[in-house]
Amino acid sequence: MDRPTIGAIVLGAGGSTRMGGVDKLLAPLAGRPLLARTLDPFADSPAVQAIVVVASAANAAAIEALVCGRAKMRAVVLGGERRRDSVRAGLAALADCDLVLVHDGARPLVTADLIDSVLRAAAETGAALCAVPVSDTVKRANAAGLVESTLRREHLWLAQTPQAFRRDILLRAHEELEGDFTDDAAMVEALGLPVRIVMGSARNLKVTTPEDLELAAAMLGHGE
Amino acid sequence: MDRPTIGAIVLGAGGSTRMGGVDKLLAPLAGRPLLARTLDPFADSPAVQAIVVVASAANAAAIEALVCGRAKMRAVVLGGERRRDSVRAGLAALADCDLVLVHDGARPLVTADLIDSVLRAAAETGAALCAVPVSDTVKRANAAGLVESTLRREHLWLAQTPQAFRRDILLRAHEELEGDFTDDAAMVEALGLPVRIVMGSARNLKVTTPEDLELAAAMLGHGE
Repeated sequence: MDRPTIGAIVLGAGGSTRMGGVDKLLAPLAGRPLLARTLDPFADSPAVQAIVVVASAANAAAIEALVCGRAKMRAVVLGGERRRDSVRAGLAALADCDLVLVHDGARPLVTADLIDSVLRAAAETGAALCAVPVSDTVKRANAAGLVESTLRREHLWLAQTPQAFRRDILLRAHEELEGDFTDDAAMVEALGLPVRIVMGSARNLKVTTPEDLELAAAMLGHGE
Repeated sequence: MDRPTIGAIVLGAGGSTRMGGVDKLLAPLAGRPLLARTLDPFADSPAVQAIVVVASAANAAAIEALVCGRAKMRAVVLGGERRRDSVRAGLAALADCDLVLVHDGARPLVTADLIDSVLRAAAETGAALCAVPVSDTVKRANAAGLVESTLRREHLWLAQTPQAFRRDILLRAHEELEGDFTDDAAMVEALGLPVRIVMGSARNLKVTTPEDLELAAAMLGHGE
């Protein structure tokens, strides 16, 4: 696998339940649709050859219109109910790839550097994700909001995307495992295979609320 | 305790090891020293009667000059090596208080509303902190950067400050417990006493790096 074929799955099928009726992927972020900003670094990364966007029935037409004619764009495919169903649809559209990236469409501040460092780690280990060290104290609470315990903070990380995988490994995880997972790396972990963490960035936030969208806009205005 | 006497301990004795030689508390944030922004909401909260700032030998003179003449300011006291030593010094300067707040000086975007909601919970339960739900997947890794496990995300919270306590409870924790703790609530948890979580805010960030300072400035420019 000296010159692996590399494809990216950008997930856009999730709801925007906390956005007050706005589809966050199509929301303007510093003057451009959020998803357009997410896709740029994948198009810019020399390693990435093909990009697949996974859409929902509700936003597929708008996403088609948005990505039409963009560099490296291979397809817009329909996702499913669960995250894993959407990733599976993306994998099917990248059957020729040795390595696949999976990225949340709602993380528009990803960079080509971050993409490339995750890819390098996955080429070596088989699976990798970017993550940031937990800097706050983590508590487990009960349903009533009373603290049950304070977790040991050593070696705790907050997972981000992009995550990258040898395609055969992620496909095997999808074929062998039942149930849903909060991220794709967890499926490879469940197979007992190694997953490497590479340093992510506090800037690489996931837009979930209107406040996150403001914050992302503020970040775009600073530090660039 | 119908009208409790309430004091605030603002911690400013920590180093600024990741700030490249700048004391973050004195760094300009949108045109004013960061610590001045941290102190404002405590002065603005009608509930808070006295404020104590805990300084280090290195920054005590500069902090004295900064806080001199500010509303409700009772004292600048010298902290110790560990967080708990600094909190203990603050407790000693608030001997007349029924409830005490503990707040990281490096969280300048705290609001009077957040302070008041933590105080209300602590008046009821004895101890409370603000925290935000963990929205990312949390991984535990080994020292080599390989994932060991993905934690169950349900009911995981990232602790912030302010934290608030009945002064007698926090004092008892300091007298009975050995060792250091990453936050003050953990000491009350170690006594087996209840600690309530109240909803914090993603805006209430802790400035640790120069990038955080930029981010805080960006946040001040938006959403206000």
